[in-house]
Amino acid sequence: MLCTSALCILLLLSATRRGLPKPKMSENGVVPRAKVLTIDTMNPTVKNVEYAVRGPIVARAVELEKELSEGMKKPFAEVIKANIGDAHAMGQQPITFFRQVLALCSYPELLNDSTFPEDAKSRARRILQSCGGNSMGSYSASQGIDSVRQDVARYIERRDGGVPCDPDDIYLTTGASDGIMTMLKLLVCGEGVTRTGVMISIPQYPLYSAALAELGAVQINYYLNEEKCWSLDISELQRALDEARHHCNPRALCIINPGNPTGQVQSRECIEDVIRFAAKEGLFLMADEVYQDNVYADGCQFHSFKKVLFEMGPEYSDTVELASFHSTSKCYMGECGFRGGYMEIINMDDEVKAQLTKLVSVRLCPPVPGQALMDLVVNPPQPGEPSYDNFIKERTATLSALAEKAKLTEQILNTVHGISCNPVQGAMYSFPRIIIPEKAVKEATDKGQQPDMFYCMKMLEETGICLVPGSGFGQKDGTYHFRMTILPPRDKLQILLNKVKEFHQKFTKHYS
Amino acid sequence: MLCTSALCILLLLSATRRGLPKPKMSENGVVPRAKVLTIDTMNPTVKNVEYAVRGPIVARAVELEKELSEGMKKPFAEVIKANIGDAHAMGQQPITFFRQVLALCSYPELLNDSTFPEDAKSRARRILQSCGGNSMGSYSASQGIDSVRQDVARYIERRDGGVPCDPDDIYLTTGASDGIMTMLKLLVCGEGVTRTGVMISIPQYPLYSAALAELGAVQINYYLNEEKCWSLDISELQRALDEARHHCNPRALCIINPGNPTGQVQSRECIEDVIRFAAKEGLFLMADEVYQDNVYADGCQFHSFKKVLFEMGPEYSDTVELASFHSTSKCYMGECGFRGGYMEIINMDDEVKAQLTKLVSVRLCPPVPGQALMDLVVNPPQPGEPSYDNFIKERTATLSALAEKAKLTEQILNTVHGISCNPVQGAMYSFPRIIIPEKAVKEATDKGQQPDMFYCMKMLEETGICLVPGSGFGQKDGTYHFRMTILPPRDKLQILLNKVKEFHQKFTKHYS
Repeated sequence: MLCTSALCILLLLSATRRGLPKPKMSENGVVPRAKVLTIDTMNPTVKNVEYAVRGPIVARAVELEKELSEGMKKPFAEVIKANIGDAHAMGQQPITFFRQVLALCSYPELLNDSTFPEDAKSRARRILQSCGGNSMGSYSASQGIDSVRQDVARYIERRDGGVPCDPDDIYLTTGASDGIMTMLKLLVCGEGVTRTGVMISIPQYPLYSAALAELGAVQINYYLNEEKCWSLDISELQRALDEARHHCNPRALCIINPGNPTGQVQSRECIEDVIRFAAKEGLFLMADEVYQDNVYADGCQFHSFKKVLFEMGPEYSDTVELASFHSTSKCYMGECGFRGGYMEIINMDDEVKAQLTKLVSVRLCPPVPGQALMDLVVNPPQPGEPSYDNFIKERTATLSALAEKAKLTEQILNTVHGISCNPVQGAMYSFPRIIIPEKAVKEATDKGQQPDMFYCMKMLEETGICLVPGSGFGQKDGTYHFRMTILPPRDKLQILLNKVKEFHQKFTKHYS
Repeated sequence: MLCTSALCILLLLSATRRGLPKPKMSENGVVPRAKVLTIDTMNPTVKNVEYAVRGPIVARAVELEKELSEGMKKPFAEVIKANIGDAHAMGQQPITFFRQVLALCSYPELLNDSTFPEDAKSRARRILQSCGGNSMGSYSASQGIDSVRQDVARYIERRDGGVPCDPDDIYLTTGASDGIMTMLKLLVCGEGVTRTGVMISIPQYPLYSAALAELGAVQINYYLNEEKCWSLDISELQRALDEARHHCNPRALCIINPGNPTGQVQSRECIEDVIRFAAKEGLFLMADEVYQDNVYADGCQFHSFKKVLFEMGPEYSDTVELASFHSTSKCYMGECGFRGGYMEIINMDDEVKAQLTKLVSVRLCPPVPGQALMDLVVNPPQPGEPSYDNFIKERTATLSALAEKAKLTEQILNTVHGISCNPVQGAMYSFPRIIIPEKAVKEATDKGQQPDMFYCMKMLEETGICLVPGSGFGQKDGTYHFRMTILPPRDKLQILLNKVKEFHQKFTKHYS
C-alpha cells in the first residue's frame, strides 16, 4: 500500500515536472492504468484530417447559441449560420411531392388516403415494389436499388442529350461525400515518391483535403484564377502536375463544377481542355457536379463532364476514366439530411469495378430513404401528372430566389471598401477576398491564428454571423477570404450582408 | 499511320505472349491508352477485403432470381435468401408507431391529420423541433441530433439499472457498421511488429475482417468453443494474444454478444472475465451489442458490457476503454434500410474524443431518418400513451415468433445425420456444423473452392436456398459450417429446413 502511494506520488511529481496533465487518482487511491488509445498512439492520418466547414468557428457558434438561450447578453439577438450549405436549416421549404412520396413509402397505409395525389402514390408503389418485402426497412443491393439506378441512367441520358448511360455504371451513395471517399480509396497506393497524388483545386471543398489526409495520399494543389472569376487555367494544372511528379505519383484530377466554395461555372471549352489534359497525362477524372442545377449567371450553363467527354469522340470517350458525383443535398432540393447521392463511373476497368462493388458491399447499402429521394430527383412529376404544376412552381421559386440572392450578395459585398467579390455564377456560396490590415495580421499571428480565422471569429463574437475563413479551403499565400452561403431568406441575407459590411469597416478602422 | 499499326501489332503480340488480355482496339484503329486504375495499380488493402454475406453465392442467387423471372426452368420455384439478417425482406412487419412517426416527420402536413395518434404526433414534433428549419432535410450535428442523444442516454440508463450515461458519450452512426469502422480507424497505427492488432472471435461477422483488411491492421483470431455452445474461453484469448504479441501490437478486443453468426448469449461471469482480461492486457474493448433484444433461450439474459463494467467498481469503470454499438437494424425492429445506429464510448481520452468528433464531421452527419428511428427505438410508446398497447403487441409477436423459429431451426437441423446445431440462444442465425464427405472435399479442392462454399453453391443450384458458407466467417481448420438466418416466416422456414435436410442427405449419399 505504502509502495503504491509512493509510486503514485512519484508519478504525479514526474508528470508535473514534464508539464503533463496529472494522472487522476481513483477513489481507492490506485493510479489508473494508462489509456490504450491516446493522441500519441492513435491513427496518425486521422490527426492530419481537417474540416473547416464544421471546425472551431462552428463549435463556438453552437456555444454562443447556447449562451443566448440561457439568457446571456450578447451584441446580437441570434446566431446566423452562413457556414454550411444547409438549405432547409435556412428556411428553404422541401418539395411537397418528394415529401409526400417519402411519407407514403414510410407508412404505406397512406396509400389508401385519398388526399395524396395519384402520381405520388404511383411513385411510392414503384419504389416499394423494388424493396425487399415492400419495405424501406430492408437492405437494398449494395450498389443501390435496381429501379432507382435505372431512373438515374435515364435522367443522365436526358440531361446529356441522349448520350447513353448504363444503370450498371451507377452506384447509389450516402451523399456525394461517400462516393468521393470511396473513389479516392480505390486510387490510393504506393509509398514515398510512388504514393498516389490527387490534384484538387485551391480553393477547394475541404472534404477532398480531409479524405486525402485520412488516406495518406498526396494532395496536389492547383490554383483557380481569382482574377478571371475563379476560372481554371490548363497551364496551372500543368505547373502543379510537373512539380508534383518529383515527389509523388499523380493519378487523379478532381474538379468541382459549379465550384465550391468559389461559385464559378466552367465553360464547355475549359471542360474539353481538362479532359484533353487528363487524357494526355494519364489522370483519372473526378467530377463533383452536385450543384448542377445551381446556375444563375447569364451566359453560364452547366455542361456535364460525361456529355463533353462523349462529344469529343471515341479517342476520349472510349478511354478517359471518369467518375461523376451527384447528390440530393443541393440544387433546388437541399435535402442534406437524407444523405442521398449517386456516382456514375465511365471506362472503369472491369476488375476494378468488381472490387468497387465488393468494397461497397461491406457497408451493406446506402440509406434507403435517401435512395428513394434520389429516385424522385431524377424522376420528378411529368407534364400532365397531377403534381407537375406545383412541382415546377416550387422548384422555380427556390431557384429564382437563389439566383436573386446570388446577385444581391455580389452587389452588396462589392460596395465595401476592402472586400471584392467575384460574381456568384452558380452553387450556393460567395468567396470574397478581404483585405486584413497589417496590425490585425500581426495580432492573429501572435495568437497562432490564421488572419482570416481571427477575422471570422471576431465577426462571430460581435455580430453572431458564422462564416468559414478562406484558410479552411486554401487560398494563395497572403490573400484572405471567407465563404458565405447565399441561403438565408432574402430579407435576412440583406441584413446579414449589411452587418458584414459594418463589421468590416469597423474592423478595418480598428486595426488601421 | 503504318508506324502506329506496327506498334499496335507488336503490343498485341507481346500481350498474347505474356498471357495478358489483348488491348481492345477502338473503331479508329488506335490502341486505347492504358487504364489509370487497374487491378495492379489500385489500393492493395481494398483487394484484401472480403465480405461473404454478400459474396459470390449471393451474386449467383440474384442471377438465379433473374433467370426464374425470365421463365428459365429450375428445380425450385423461388430463391429463398437466408444469407442475411434482413428481417423485412423476409416478411417481418415494421412497428406501426415507428412508421407513423417517420411519415409525420417526412411530411409534417400530416400533423393535421386526425387519424394519427397523439403520441406519434408529439414524438414527431419533438424530433422536428430538434432539426434545423424543422426539417429532416437539414444536416444534423455530426455527432447526431442532441435530443436523440439525450434519449439514447436515458435508454441506456434504464437498460443498465441506473448506471449513468452522458449524452456527450453517444455518437449516432450510419448503422452499427459505420461506428465499428470509425472506432477501428482511430485505433490503427504502427508498422511491422508495431502494427495495431485487433482480436476478433472466430467465427466472426465479416465486417470485422473486412474493416481490418481495408485499414491494413492485423487480425488476431480467437476461437469460440463450439463444444460449449460457442462460449468464450479466457484461456483461448490468452493464447491468441500471446502468439500475436510476437508479430504485432494487439490493442483492441472485439466481442459480439449475442453472437453473430453463432447465436450464443454470453454469461455475466464471462463478461466480467473478458473485462478483467482487457484491463490486465491493456486492450480497448469493442462490444457489438446490436442483438441486445434478441435473446430466446431459457436462462439466458443480455448483460451489457457497460453495466457489468460499472458494477465491477472504479478499478475497472474508471479505466477500461469501451465502445458499445447498437443499431435500428436488428432486434424487433429490423429496420436495416434506414441505416440508424449509435455508439457509446466510455473512458475515451479527451483528446482522442476530440479527434473522433472531428473525423465524423467530415461525413457531415448520419442520415436523419435513421436518427429519428433510433430515437423511437430508445423512446418507444409508454404505458398510458395511445400507441402503447399496439406497440407491445407488435413487438411481442415479432420476438416470440423469432424465439419459436430459433427452437424450430435447432430441432430440425439436429435430426439430420451429419449436421449438428448448437441452441440458437440469441441473435438471428444458426451456425450448424456439417460433415462434408471426403470425396466432396476433394472435388471442391480440385476446383479451388472451399468445401463449404462448394456445398452451399450446390444447395443453391438444387434448392434455391441461399446460405453463407462457414468459411466466410472463419472456423477451425477441417470443420465446415453454414450460416442460416431464422427470419423466414414459420411455414416457409419449416419447408426450408426440410429442404436443407433432404439436400444434405442427397449430397452425403452422392459423395459417399
